[in-house]
Amino acid sequence: MATNPSWILRSYPSGMPRAENWILEDRPIPSAAGGALLVKTLWLSVDPYMRGRISPAKNYAAGFQVGDMMRGGGIGEVVTSESAEFMPGDLVMSDYFGWQPYSVIDATSAKLVTTTDAPMQSALSYLGMPGLTAYFALLKTGHPKPGETVLISAASGAVGQIAGQIARIKGFDPVAVAGSDEKLAWCKELGYRTGVNHRASTNLVADVAGACPKGVDVFIDNTAGPIHDAAMLNLNTFGRVVVVGTMALADRLEQPDIGLRHLRRTLITRARISGFLLDDHDSEYATALGDLLLWYKQGLLQTREDVAEGIEAVPHAFIRMLKGENFGKQLVKL
Amino acid sequence: MATNPSWILRSYPSGMPRAENWILEDRPIPSAAGGALLVKTLWLSVDPYMRGRISPAKNYAAGFQVGDMMRGGGIGEVVTSESAEFMPGDLVMSDYFGWQPYSVIDATSAKLVTTTDAPMQSALSYLGMPGLTAYFALLKTGHPKPGETVLISAASGAVGQIAGQIARIKGFDPVAVAGSDEKLAWCKELGYRTGVNHRASTNLVADVAGACPKGVDVFIDNTAGPIHDAAMLNLNTFGRVVVVGTMALADRLEQPDIGLRHLRRTLITRARISGFLLDDHDSEYATALGDLLLWYKQGLLQTREDVAEGIEAVPHAFIRMLKGENFGKQLVKL
Repeated sequence: MATNPSWILRSYPSGMPRAENWILEDRPIPSAAGGALLVKTLWLSVDPYMRGRISPAKNYAAGFQVGDMMRGGGIGEVVTSESAEFMPGDLVMSDYFGWQPYSVIDATSAKLVTTTDAPMQSALSYLGMPGLTAYFALLKTGHPKPGETVLISAASGAVGQIAGQIARIKGFDPVAVAGSDEKLAWCKELGYRTGVNHRASTNLVADVAGACPKGVDVFIDNTAGPIHDAAMLNLNTFGRVVVVGTMALADRLEQPDIGLRHLRRTLITRARISGFLLDDHDSEYATALGDLLLWYKQGLLQTREDVAEGIEAVPHAFIRMLKGENFGKQLVKL
Repeated sequence: MATNPSWILRSYPSGMPRAENWILEDRPIPSAAGGALLVKTLWLSVDPYMRGRISPAKNYAAGFQVGDMMRGGGIGEVVTSESAEFMPGDLVMSDYFGWQPYSVIDATSAKLVTTTDAPMQSALSYLGMPGLTAYFALLKTGHPKPGETVLISAASGAVGQIAGQIARIKGFDPVAVAGSDEKLAWCKELGYRTGVNHRASTNLVADVAGACPKGVDVFIDNTAGPIHDAAMLNLNTFGRVVVVGTMALADRLEQPDIGLRHLRRTLITRARISGFLLDDHDSEYATALGDLLLWYKQGLLQTREDVAEGIEAVPHAFIRMLKGENFGKQLVKL
């Protein structure tokens, strides 16, 4: 039996990532040096942003080199601690868990998972990065007004499911774009007024228009691609577009993105298109997490996870999430 | 001799407008009914926004129908007034002057031209729509910080020449994009630090990078097209793009604009791309005109006009402006 099987980036993807882009190598269980923690991985998170980290294309953060071990969000139990701030047995989360069962992480990247009011893996979902992204992208960057139509792509995904429910809680009019009728049905349970199945649609512009008869005031764009176009062509005057993710480019991140451009439309509507990165809001995380936990405890937030099992499953879970084959927040349980 | 030769839209342009899209028809001198003014036209303004008014494509304001007389910015002398607010002999400006020597305009669209500190036609240029556009697009929508690099396309044009000088006055670092070395030389006289001749460039991305070694913080986009792409690819984190005009699309406004898209870049830089329309700032015109007139009187604003003569010249002046063959604010003197 392997000691510490670890996923190593073997090659940058050309197009959609494939399992062959990684190799599972056995590694020794590392030991924690000064300021670091050895953690036993309990949960790993795979997220769309990681597509940008395995590309030589310019990004907002440095990516992995070929030969590097993959790292991403995770939750684990501290085994040994070389930091005064954590003790063995502590449950911690970090964005720098290795894709491996035992991982050394820097204590400065770690946070205690403290809530007992929600399952621990919530810290990787609605009480963590995706939930915070939904919160700030919608309320701070999109800032809709009550009654305004908020169109959300990847609406049942980790970010979309929370954004749609916050929109409902706050009295906006959320409309979903998702990739199956089953996902849309669940979106309506969450409180989305209606939605569009972009895989079944033969005319996305018309279908978004039908779902948004008063036009689109705020668009939470998790995908880019044709859904972005359909939203732009239905955007109201002074519309706000929040560019949260570019999942539709997962199979062509290294190519210049060619297609419809909307500068004229931007001028005509006096739209504001804003790139969004969660890190820019870190001073307000505590407030946002307080709201999210409160809503969860009040029964106002339903959430859905898609859980793969075992370290072997990580690349596959990542790839199916990029393809939209997951249903809910994609996690891997070790 | 014709009584009141008037330019009528004969057909919507297919691509770049051509002289055949209009016909000069003689009309009687109209008479002013209740609330209107009969004015003798002294100056007409041709501006890029008028391309959008002679297109069936969706716009922010209703356009002209085939068979309509063209109307646009102008200055004239009141001949007869059916409004209590104006008297014969008053010098007025309006955005609704006919392309004709004698025109009836609604008094509610008219404003007195009062300054004696600048030539009257300045009210169509740096003390009017283009100057106000430069002022608000730069300061209110772009809001650069001192020392930041401000890239301005169509830099010697009616808007660009003022934007560049405001940027210099305010302590920003203005960089020009213009269509000839002669224009660039003049831009440097105005205070632009340096510039790029986009017609001579074989690599706009590299040339913009060379002219903006610290990257682009604010981009005043008067053109769209390849200059937009070059700016986006040099945009700094938290860059601001103000979409003021789409002149590079003058020959294809009816086609979807296809080309590089920058959603990924927008996300990575957390850029803000904003459509700009001057009308949205009308409550602050007085303050802005005060500043512009002060700077002009202090000798801080140089300006340049490109003046065609006679009513026959109007469509030609409009077309050459769209093609960038003018040098400075394009006007027609009657």
